[in-house]
Amino acid sequence: MAKKSKAAQTPPAAGPVRPVTIAFDVMGSDHGPEEIIRGAAQLTLDTPHIHALFVGDRGLIDHALSSIRHNAERVVVHHAAQFVAMHEKPAAALDDKRDASVLVAAQLVAAGEAEALVSAGNTGAGVLACARTFKLIPGVKRAALATVYPTQSTRGEKDDPFSLILDVGATVDATADDLVAFAVMGAAYSRIISRNPNPSVALLSNGTEAQKGPPRVVEANARLQHVKGLRFIGNVEGVDIPKGTADVIVCDGFVGNVCLKMLEGVHETVMALAKYAYKEKLLWRAGLAMLSGGFERIKEVTDWEQYGGAPILGFDRIFIKAHGRSKARAITNAGKVAAKAVANDLARSIQEGLKAS
Amino acid sequence: MAKKSKAAQTPPAAGPVRPVTIAFDVMGSDHGPEEIIRGAAQLTLDTPHIHALFVGDRGLIDHALSSIRHNAERVVVHHAAQFVAMHEKPAAALDDKRDASVLVAAQLVAAGEAEALVSAGNTGAGVLACARTFKLIPGVKRAALATVYPTQSTRGEKDDPFSLILDVGATVDATADDLVAFAVMGAAYSRIISRNPNPSVALLSNGTEAQKGPPRVVEANARLQHVKGLRFIGNVEGVDIPKGTADVIVCDGFVGNVCLKMLEGVHETVMALAKYAYKEKLLWRAGLAMLSGGFERIKEVTDWEQYGGAPILGFDRIFIKAHGRSKARAITNAGKVAAKAVANDLARSIQEGLKAS
Repeated sequence: MAKKSKAAQTPPAAGPVRPVTIAFDVMGSDHGPEEIIRGAAQLTLDTPHIHALFVGDRGLIDHALSSIRHNAERVVVHHAAQFVAMHEKPAAALDDKRDASVLVAAQLVAAGEAEALVSAGNTGAGVLACARTFKLIPGVKRAALATVYPTQSTRGEKDDPFSLILDVGATVDATADDLVAFAVMGAAYSRIISRNPNPSVALLSNGTEAQKGPPRVVEANARLQHVKGLRFIGNVEGVDIPKGTADVIVCDGFVGNVCLKMLEGVHETVMALAKYAYKEKLLWRAGLAMLSGGFERIKEVTDWEQYGGAPILGFDRIFIKAHGRSKARAITNAGKVAAKAVANDLARSIQEGLKAS
Repeated sequence: MAKKSKAAQTPPAAGPVRPVTIAFDVMGSDHGPEEIIRGAAQLTLDTPHIHALFVGDRGLIDHALSSIRHNAERVVVHHAAQFVAMHEKPAAALDDKRDASVLVAAQLVAAGEAEALVSAGNTGAGVLACARTFKLIPGVKRAALATVYPTQSTRGEKDDPFSLILDVGATVDATADDLVAFAVMGAAYSRIISRNPNPSVALLSNGTEAQKGPPRVVEANARLQHVKGLRFIGNVEGVDIPKGTADVIVCDGFVGNVCLKMLEGVHETVMALAKYAYKEKLLWRAGLAMLSGGFERIKEVTDWEQYGGAPILGFDRIFIKAHGRSKARAITNAGKVAAKAVANDLARSIQEGLKAS
């Protein structure tokens, strides 16, 4: 953590960096608009090139900005009178609320007022706002929600102990076509964001053999073996997810969502198993007690929101979905990831990868 | 563990228990025929009613029995000249080897020479041998492989910290019909084996709302709400698997297999995460060191083979698939579970449950 903050304060590499405007949907997150604004405001101070376009209730935003340090030259506010709450059904909410902040923000991005969208609100509403506003990249039929998660192995320029898994919930019934596109999208994202020049990509299945799995997975495996420029390492199994056998793991949104939520629960499970396993031994209990405060740290390590949020991949515009519980620091990270994706033209990189598939 | 062994030596409840013959496929497991024979032989000593029918190479079996204590009045040997190895493709192996031990054993069960089958060999070959030999219970279209796994919550007569999850690999593309049948089968198994009179049953999905998930899951949810005698608690998410929110979790074999293998990897993951999280703090390192031996215990707790193996549900005969790595104790447990399922007429219980769906 400390390292990351320091890195943010380091001057950028030599040469001018072109300005990037990120639209922040400030409404509908668990901790309220102020955390979003604080995180984005920090970006306008830390970086010389990121501009923030705040979308939401102007009164709330102006009030927050009056007490939060920011670079006023790189902040613009756009009023949106409505927002989608966490509990709302995405489709119905967006139908009803044409002035919902996430929809207005997506429209501003589509219109070129900003180049990427960051939201910590209702995930489904965010994905749907993009689907209704952005265009799919040619060759992509359905979008994917990707997320990084902690692994045993490390990778890339920074020895990241994180892999990328997609889809984790945007497309619950992915076809073989979708899985192939997800593989290409995930590899492009890993190259750009994790600075991993040649990421290994695997399909999640119930066996490592190419013919294992339901028909969509078997077909995707056969096709991925022939995608140029993609380091496809075949099928991996559930045990390979935490191991980090692959840099990018590809699956449909149903399986991916179940796995991600299992990973999120690993902290509680481990504590419970540890208590069950150790209850009889005093030495073990002492060891557990010594670790008890530190177990929170595992939770932090497994908390994917700390690592820049989850990108929605497949659209011509960038959307980074930060966790609903995001505090300011998570929003700052999400904004940085969005800016990096824009600066490296992620969408074009995906499009080129798909041409080879 | 110690408690379980003691229980096995306790005299049975008052009243005569009818004899049950279990066919043991002794071939093709990781530790060789002797471990299987030793585990089954123990059953003929511990219980007054379990008979063992050993199927495999007669020379090997006779040789092993010459040095393993057993009740000779309750042991029969049936020679089978071939067996399916772990690495073999099930369908091709069974086509080639008409005298494979697992197939011969299944045929003996189908013919009434034994009432249940236990094997620690190739899982796919075992499932296929049953499919080719046993009949599906009326109302069941496809079989499911179920397994118990450790959870935070406890349940049933013995306060078991285990839930049942099915399917974990027999039917990778389950339909709504299959999922409904799996729910009924899982509940029946839990009632009989875990002595949990009214087990809660949940569908695994990417959200708790009834309309979440791919079409097969949404349809299964709608139908399960109307199955009489079934305590269906709706959808659960990935995080609910380790929590043990439900006594029985239902999913297709693809998702279930991925989840089960993730659970099996939890030990390694936790150690890796712990090292990553604690590397900077001396106190935490000391705590970890104190626990290091004990972490093996977590592995044991998460090692589902210790809990009687995985039943194949849906056929008119019982098949308990013990883990390939099973040692004698695991085989003893698998034999006990098989005998319990036979004594309580699991197949009829499933059939009656399905009539109400």
